[in-house]
Amino acid sequence: MTDFNFWSPTFFAFGRGKESQTGELVRRFGGTKALLHFGGKSAVASGLIGRIETSLESAGIGFVQLGGVKPNPRSSLVDEGVRIAMAEGVDFVLAVGGGSVIDSSKAIAIGAANGGEWRRFYVGREVKVRPAIPAALPVGVVLTIAAAGSEGSPNSVINLEPENLKRAAGGDILRPKFAVMNPELTMTLPPFQTACGLADMFAHLCERYFSPTKDVALTDNLCEAVMRTVVEEGAKVMANGRDYQARANIMWAGTIAHNDICGAGRVQDWASHGIEHELSALYDCAHGAGLAVVMPAWMTYVHKADAARFARFARNVFGIGAGDGDESAALAGIEAFRRWLKSLGLPLTFAELGAKAEDIPLLVKTLNLRGNTLGGFVQLTETDVAAIYRLCVDPRFAQEKGKGA
Amino acid sequence: MTDFNFWSPTFFAFGRGKESQTGELVRRFGGTKALLHFGGKSAVASGLIGRIETSLESAGIGFVQLGGVKPNPRSSLVDEGVRIAMAEGVDFVLAVGGGSVIDSSKAIAIGAANGGEWRRFYVGREVKVRPAIPAALPVGVVLTIAAAGSEGSPNSVINLEPENLKRAAGGDILRPKFAVMNPELTMTLPPFQTACGLADMFAHLCERYFSPTKDVALTDNLCEAVMRTVVEEGAKVMANGRDYQARANIMWAGTIAHNDICGAGRVQDWASHGIEHELSALYDCAHGAGLAVVMPAWMTYVHKADAARFARFARNVFGIGAGDGDESAALAGIEAFRRWLKSLGLPLTFAELGAKAEDIPLLVKTLNLRGNTLGGFVQLTETDVAAIYRLCVDPRFAQEKGKGA
Repeated sequence: MTDFNFWSPTFFAFGRGKESQTGELVRRFGGTKALLHFGGKSAVASGLIGRIETSLESAGIGFVQLGGVKPNPRSSLVDEGVRIAMAEGVDFVLAVGGGSVIDSSKAIAIGAANGGEWRRFYVGREVKVRPAIPAALPVGVVLTIAAAGSEGSPNSVINLEPENLKRAAGGDILRPKFAVMNPELTMTLPPFQTACGLADMFAHLCERYFSPTKDVALTDNLCEAVMRTVVEEGAKVMANGRDYQARANIMWAGTIAHNDICGAGRVQDWASHGIEHELSALYDCAHGAGLAVVMPAWMTYVHKADAARFARFARNVFGIGAGDGDESAALAGIEAFRRWLKSLGLPLTFAELGAKAEDIPLLVKTLNLRGNTLGGFVQLTETDVAAIYRLCVDPRFAQEKGKGA
Repeated sequence: MTDFNFWSPTFFAFGRGKESQTGELVRRFGGTKALLHFGGKSAVASGLIGRIETSLESAGIGFVQLGGVKPNPRSSLVDEGVRIAMAEGVDFVLAVGGGSVIDSSKAIAIGAANGGEWRRFYVGREVKVRPAIPAALPVGVVLTIAAAGSEGSPNSVINLEPENLKRAAGGDILRPKFAVMNPELTMTLPPFQTACGLADMFAHLCERYFSPTKDVALTDNLCEAVMRTVVEEGAKVMANGRDYQARANIMWAGTIAHNDICGAGRVQDWASHGIEHELSALYDCAHGAGLAVVMPAWMTYVHKADAARFARFARNVFGIGAGDGDESAALAGIEAFRRWLKSLGLPLTFAELGAKAEDIPLLVKTLNLRGNTLGGFVQLTETDVAAIYRLCVDPRFAQEKGKGA
């Protein structure tokens, strides 16, 4: 086990109708005037934004609105949000939506507290020590999509225009003060977006589970517990999107998958996220869909580096027989994972995602490794990343000799 | 799943040598002058208190000392601590020790911030709505015993003298600001105290796991994950008290078992804790030892109320064969639990604990149910509690018809 700090100070208000407490939560955490930030018109049409407004008014919280956040949130809207926040003198940013809205809100919170400056805190993986964020407005969340875990995380990812580079900021100052989590708000989410959310939270667990650190029994067991829950409750939620209990289990799992309780005490990986971010930046595909393509390819490529670990994953998450040898159990586990993703209606190949094999050199280039490696479980070079992209084009490349073989 | 709020804002600094950060953590969380509160002379003799003093001095934090906390912490020492804290104008209480020291520190933190008043916030279970605690000094922890989970919890239990009544206070204001957790500090803990800690954290999980609430898949899976870790890593730590990795897993498990991540979304029980508290109050036995006697008796008495749940516990925590029927699996699980407690060297009966059958009426009386019931999984009357105490005297009473049969 490695030494670690763990801090997850967000107040989670979970359950039916909890959004009615939004105004008093903003006040409790020091807000007097909020920027109410959200995505498309459905939040308005559903009446949710109206209920939030009522709650803010009841608590005596002033507010200005800014909608229009898109998936893979854009820097131009962040700039507009910062301008509004500073002009209007808001002291709180309230995100109503999923990961993109929350990440956009965190960027606005940085900009508004640093004289408009926020871009320089968003960096690529070539920067080993992230610039410290000196200040940020407090952020609160009303969550409507179970997926990204940004409601409890210290991170934010923004698409920097005009180059469409996905870049990340991080720091405990970005952890939301509160998150209102009403599973009812996720019941109308269409199946494809629901499935993308499941893939995203499962990926957050994999990035922590596939670690070179030994003797982390508790974190291992917790990871597997959340993974099993996502697989089993995910199947229920796909079968019936109005299953409150399944929606509730999935919603809470999305938070637990990413507030780092499942990562405590170990080196993490994050290669799949890095490899995927280039896909969603270039093709504007859903992050979860990109992960469904990348993760099994990454697993296939690296599993020989620690077949015992992949065998444990196969047995404890997908119920692969304990009697099989590690190598065959590992492969059976990866195949079971693929089948689960397929059953959710997610793409498994470049073609299904709308990505192109001829773009692989460009994808590797924009990943911007600059001679460094990617990942904590296995350290991937540019050559390795290109091979993983090729596995996404055609899983038959699985026959190739992977890393660690 | 029930609606819930979850808030665990404590900053956990975990790993080797982390106590050297104590002073800067006190300062980070607003302290300038601390009451340094601890237990016996071993903390001084080991050099730990000296290292903490050095860390406080380096950070420019003033401090006064108060040692002498005993297990089942006494109100008289709390009174002394409050007097010192107010006279010296301390603005922070720093607990160096285990659950008793932390609970005593929380009581002092209340008293010092409320003009000396702290007792009225400590009440019995006859009080359905706990009095709100209007203020408390911030509390920090350097943990030396993995057991009570008080380093992350909002609770405190004090032995009120002269009657020796165990009474509890609770409120988020009592959650420690930080907890320094260095597993090395627990390596010299004797086997019996180590075992008591394991029983205590396992009980914290059971009180949450045995719930009448259905459809809480994630919390169920998390509970079982921590239970399995405590059983397996507990065996390792009893075999070799200097096994850093096992000590580390157990130490983190003690926190996770009680910061309520394993209780989110469900009605909890807490009958075993109530029944045990009367034993440690009357006989001044170790809380964990009392729990080792009470828990299997409670399980035996109530298991018929939901044999399927006890069967799941047996299968997922103790690996009882899936083929057995629920009733026989349930009984096999309780027996496996007993064997595990026995293997830790813990008592299983009144006689081994030093308790007396003739005191049962007194124990039931001081439990003070006043016609109410105890527990959330099965609601126990005074008659039921007396029957559970009789099972602690002689487990053959297991043949009795239990609750819910």
